[in-house]
Parts: sequence; structure tokens; C-alpha cells
Amino acid sequence: MGSSANGVAGDPAATSSGGRGVDKGVDFANYFCTYSFLYHQKEMLCDRVRMNAYYNAVFDNKDHFYGKTVLDVGTGSGILAIWAGQAGARKVYAVEATKMAEHARELVKANKLQNVVEVIEGSIEDVNLPEKVDVIISEWMGYFLLRESMFDSVIFARDHWLKPTGVMYPSNARMWLAPIRSRLADQKMNDYEGSMGGWRSFLDETRTYYGVDMSVLSKPFSEEQKKYYLQTSLWNNLHPNQVIGTAAIIKEIDCLTVTVNDILNVRASISSTITAEETRLCGFAGWFDVHFRGSKENPAQQEIELTTAPSENHGTHWGQQVFLLHPPICVGERDNLDINFSMARSKENHRLMETVNMDKGYGWFSGLHQF
Amino acid sequence: MGSSANGVAGDPAATSSGGRGVDKGVDFANYFCTYSFLYHQKEMLCDRVRMNAYYNAVFDNKDHFYGKTVLDVGTGSGILAIWAGQAGARKVYAVEATKMAEHARELVKANKLQNVVEVIEGSIEDVNLPEKVDVIISEWMGYFLLRESMFDSVIFARDHWLKPTGVMYPSNARMWLAPIRSRLADQKMNDYEGSMGGWRSFLDETRTYYGVDMSVLSKPFSEEQKKYYLQTSLWNNLHPNQVIGTAAIIKEIDCLTVTVNDILNVRASISSTITAEETRLCGFAGWFDVHFRGSKENPAQQEIELTTAPSENHGTHWGQQVFLLHPPICVGERDNLDINFSMARSKENHRLMETVNMDKGYGWFSGLHQF
Repeated sequence: MGSSANGVAGDPAATSSGGRGVDKGVDFANYFCTYSFLYHQKEMLCDRVRMNAYYNAVFDNKDHFYGKTVLDVGTGSGILAIWAGQAGARKVYAVEATKMAEHARELVKANKLQNVVEVIEGSIEDVNLPEKVDVIISEWMGYFLLRESMFDSVIFARDHWLKPTGVMYPSNARMWLAPIRSRLADQKMNDYEGSMGGWRSFLDETRTYYGVDMSVLSKPFSEEQKKYYLQTSLWNNLHPNQVIGTAAIIKEIDCLTVTVNDILNVRASISSTITAEETRLCGFAGWFDVHFRGSKENPAQQEIELTTAPSENHGTHWGQQVFLLHPPICVGERDNLDINFSMARSKENHRLMETVNMDKGYGWFSGLHQF
Repeated sequence: MGSSANGVAGDPAATSSGGRGVDKGVDFANYFCTYSFLYHQKEMLCDRVRMNAYYNAVFDNKDHFYGKTVLDVGTGSGILAIWAGQAGARKVYAVEATKMAEHARELVKANKLQNVVEVIEGSIEDVNLPEKVDVIISEWMGYFLLRESMFDSVIFARDHWLKPTGVMYPSNARMWLAPIRSRLADQKMNDYEGSMGGWRSFLDETRTYYGVDMSVLSKPFSEEQKKYYLQTSLWNNLHPNQVIGTAAIIKEIDCLTVTVNDILNVRASISSTITAEETRLCGFAGWFDVHFRGSKENPAQQEIELTTAPSENHGTHWGQQVFLLHPPICVGERDNLDINFSMARSKENHRLMETVNMDKGYGWFSGLHQF
């Protein structure tokens, strides 16, 4: 689930090692609280691409659910748990950390599934289930897949509660990167320059009217504003014709075997060929897809894909993450880019990300982004 | 300082009794973090009405500062401490809880006051000063004066660090309430109704396409949306001609003697006479003023006022807090309103406020607002 809750710099004591060791009050204030609002749940429930993918994944694969036990990690309103129940599950455990669990309970009852679906309010790391399950279903994906770091909790659930023969829904995930053009590059540069122009006036006024020389703050102000305008990736729903070169996979995840360690960092060296005519490389877009394939031993009858790639008619609430280049670079058809991409968790807030370095074949270019 | 940082529901363990007993990590994530940004400091430094009032309060009252010791509570960028130093203070202690203290230190040095102004990073409740002071200066005022509950910290500073003969800058504060007209009332009602219309479509779609009946969530969704659109007071910079009746004082504070207990609640029964011709009473506006008068024993040479009343040319970043009525009520010139106003701290987050009841002479009307 993509959430625009901007985790602000949290408790410096928060570690970057995932859900454990993070102060729960701080984690709630920074992260969980948005999900206790019905308005936010509704936004996700109105994402038809998301809803269709999960709906079809369940109902086109009833063999995985009929008479089986299911765990829904982060059930929110309870929708996935309800579908699992309607697909004939024997028992569904629907775990939700926020007070939204109370609404989920009401929804389960109103849809006559209270004998099958048990809603449990609490963190998956804390709850105790009476048995292991055949299926773990969860909608855990954040912006560019890993923002919010909810997958840590799904991995925990898998390691503690999934039978050896069990399957994950979704079973696979991939992160993609592609070169793009976008007016946002100029917009953000204009915003930054406007802000610095405002700063210069401010310096004059404070000196003239209030006798204080604030120029020693110019450098930190400029850095703060650069970080805000130029080095923070943006949410956008791109049109496919903004993608100006081939997309490449920068991360592949098998949800049955991946560890938290595997996802602490995303590092990839990729190539991309420009496919547009003379144009400006304004930056890169990152997105993800997930697949519902079941497991090798227990494959899905019907493989389902949920993709968040730029699309004219099938955009999602996740959009794409846009990493802008300043300044943009002129490129031409068949030009080749060699890109080194590196992303790690923010030290101040493990649910946020930082990209350290993105350089290209033309020469060294350092970009720092956070989101 | 007014901050739009919307403290979200924090740790349920947080008490409503003020700064002590509140988890510091949560308090940082909810409140303090905004003040560590230079952009936010700049916004306050660009408020000319605010800046002029404090500048004049200091430099028109040099007797209070020359050769004296001063404590600046929540120094931010350090501006008040620097002015105190420039007005001839012997020593200024400038306490700041966030990393902004580092910038304040740089600013003090760049303005050649490092021998007079000592910047101390920490909460005023935790720091140890080598001596008591003659003056406590602070810009602690939040929206409608008390939002953010920073004054608790100023009271603590006064009780621990002000000499018996000391003075408070500002010395007095008042909260005002007046009946208003505003297009916001219709706007917010339209927004709410639009949201409920969207909900009804959402119910149909989820039932039709996804086989789930969500109608049991209609009531909580409606309450959540009402709270958001109709029962949350708004920031606005009102024009004086939107004030349609006489304003009344609902709270008076002597900064030398007030206790935290005195400001936990604001309760007042007031009257207001409508001064506009036939018009719609859309709600009430709340604002504050502070005065710099020194003390009875040690009065200011020049009394200075800082008011945030609706003004055509002298608006401030505080604006006013608008409490809307739904529906608005037709009133006429010389109509009399009897208003019972009650405001207390939010249980979930002591830095936020809730108004419980505002009824008028026409009959009972219950309004619940939070901000």
C-alpha cells in the first residue's frame, strides 16, 4: 500500500534494521497512524488495478484457498481476508496493527464470515496464532516497492507462521528503472531558484530592518532547499511516452526465500538504450510489479500480474517514483546509458529510503535522493 | 510560533499534563521536528508584525536588558537572543531543543556576540544554568495562543530560572472570540457532502465488482469525514469586515503568575452583539494578543502590543482559528449572542486542542472542534 505519510526524522535512537528495535510510539506517530483512517483505506480500495489483481489472484486460484488456512498480514479493512473466506478457506487470521482492526471485524461480520475470519489487533511480530497456515496473503508494497519497509513484517510472518508447503500471495516482486523525460525537472529547479531568490531578499531585509546578518545561514539553507526540491524523489503517474529508453530490472524478489538482509539495500548496475529521438534525459522512474504464481511445488492455476509501470489507462495509486537529474542531459536514439543504482534505508527512519549514487556512462554524476 | 505541523494521534500513553511524562521520541516525531528546518524558521522571521513587535519590545526597553541576564526559551535561529545581546545584555542563555541550536550558534558568532550569548541545545526542562536571570524572553505562541502547549516550558523556565524581581517578555496574553461570516462554511459542507457522495458510489462498486458489502462502515466513515471537514477548526487570515459582531476576551494571562493548571482549560461565558446588517453567522474566529509591559515593580518604558486580530494590512503567520457552524444562522444588527466556550487539551496529543461546546442564546447548539 502506498502512503504519502512523510515519515519525518524520527527518534535518533531508531535503528535501520527493521521493525524490531524501533520505538513503537515513534513508529506509530511516523507511520502506522495514517492506516487507522477509513479515508486512506478507501483510497486503496478504489484502486481498481490493485483490487482486480488481488481479486483475480484469489478467485482464479481457489485451489490454494479452498479448505485451507490463511494469514492476511496488515488486513486493514479486511478485504483480502474476506475474499479468502469467500473463496472457501477453512480459517483466516487477519492481523492489523491499528484500530482499523475494529472496522475489519465489523466488515467480516456484515459479510457473514465471522466463523471463518478472525481479526486480530496487534503487530504480527507480537501475536500468537494457534496454528501455521497454508497461505500468507498481504498487500505490503509501498512506493517503489520497499518504501515503508512493511515487507519485513511479511517475512517475519512467513518465517514463523507459514507451513513448509505454504505459498505466498504475491509470490514474486521486481523493481524496475527507466530513463524518462518530465517537466518536473524544470519545475523543481525553478522552485529551488525561486526559494534562493527569496532568501537573498530576506537577508537584505533582516540586515536593514533588524540589524542581524543572516548570511552565515545561506549555505545550510541552500542545502536544505536543494534536498527538498532537487534531491527528494517525487510521486508521479507518468505517461508511457515519457519513458525514453529501455527499462531494466534492478531487483528480483522470491517472497518464499528472501530475507530482510536481502532487501536492506538495492544495488544494481544496469544498461538502458534510449529509444526516443533527440530528447532530454530528465531523470529516472522507478516502479515495481508483483506476481501471483504460487510455488514450484504448488503452482497457481492462473498466474496474475500486478504492475505499476507507466500506463495510459491502468495507473495505480502507487504511481512511479521519479528521480530527477539536474541539469537534464541531451540524449539521442540508440545512446547507451550505464547506470549504477544504490538505495538503502534512511538511518533516521527505517521506513524511508535514500539513494546514494546514480552515475551514467557519460561520466560521473552523483545524485542523492530520499523518499 | 504558529506551526502547521499537524500533530497526529500519538502514543496513547502520552498524558495531557504537559511536557513532563510525554515520550520524547513521540514528542519529537509529532512536534519538535518542524522547528529544525531553516525554511520554517525563515517563515517566522519573515512575519514583519511579529518581528517588529519583538524588536521594538527589546530596543524600546533597553533598561530591561542593559547589563542584565536574559534567558531565551526556544531560541530557534537565535534572533531574540541576538537582539537582547545587541541591547546590551551582560549574558544571554539561548535554549533550543532541536539541531537548530547549531545554526543559532553560528549566527551568534557571525554577529559577534559569542561572548555574550550562549546557545544551549536541550529542553529547558533538562538544562542547568549557572544563574537565575533578570528577563525571560520567548516567542512561544501557537495558533490561537495555546496550540502546541509550548507555554508550559516557559512557565517551567520562569519557576526555575527567573529572579524574584525578573520580568517576562511578553508579560501578558489574551485570547479573543468574535462571530464571523465566511465562505469556508459552505465550502467545507460541500467538501463533506462530496465525500459522502463518493462513498455511496464506492459502496455500489465494491458490492458489484468485488462482492463485498461495505455499508457497515458508512457510519464510521461519515463520522470520520465530519470530524475532518466540519469539526476541525481552520487556519485563515480573515478580513476585518468578516467580523460581524463585537469581540470578547475569553482568557487573560499574566505571564508572571499563571500556572500550567490555569491553561489546561479555557472556559468562558461571553456575550457578543451583532454589528453587521442582516447576515449569516458562519462561525467564530479566535485570535490572541500579547503585551510587553514589564512588571508592576519594574514596568516597561514603552509598552508594546502584538495582536493577531483580523487586519487588512497587518496579518501575521498565525492568522486566526475559525470554528465553523453547520448550518450557518441568519442574524441581524443588534442581535445578542450568549456563547459558552470550552477548550481543553487533546487526550491523545497534549499539544493539540479540542473545543467541547459552543452554544448560543438562540438555543442549544453543540459544536466539537479540534485543532
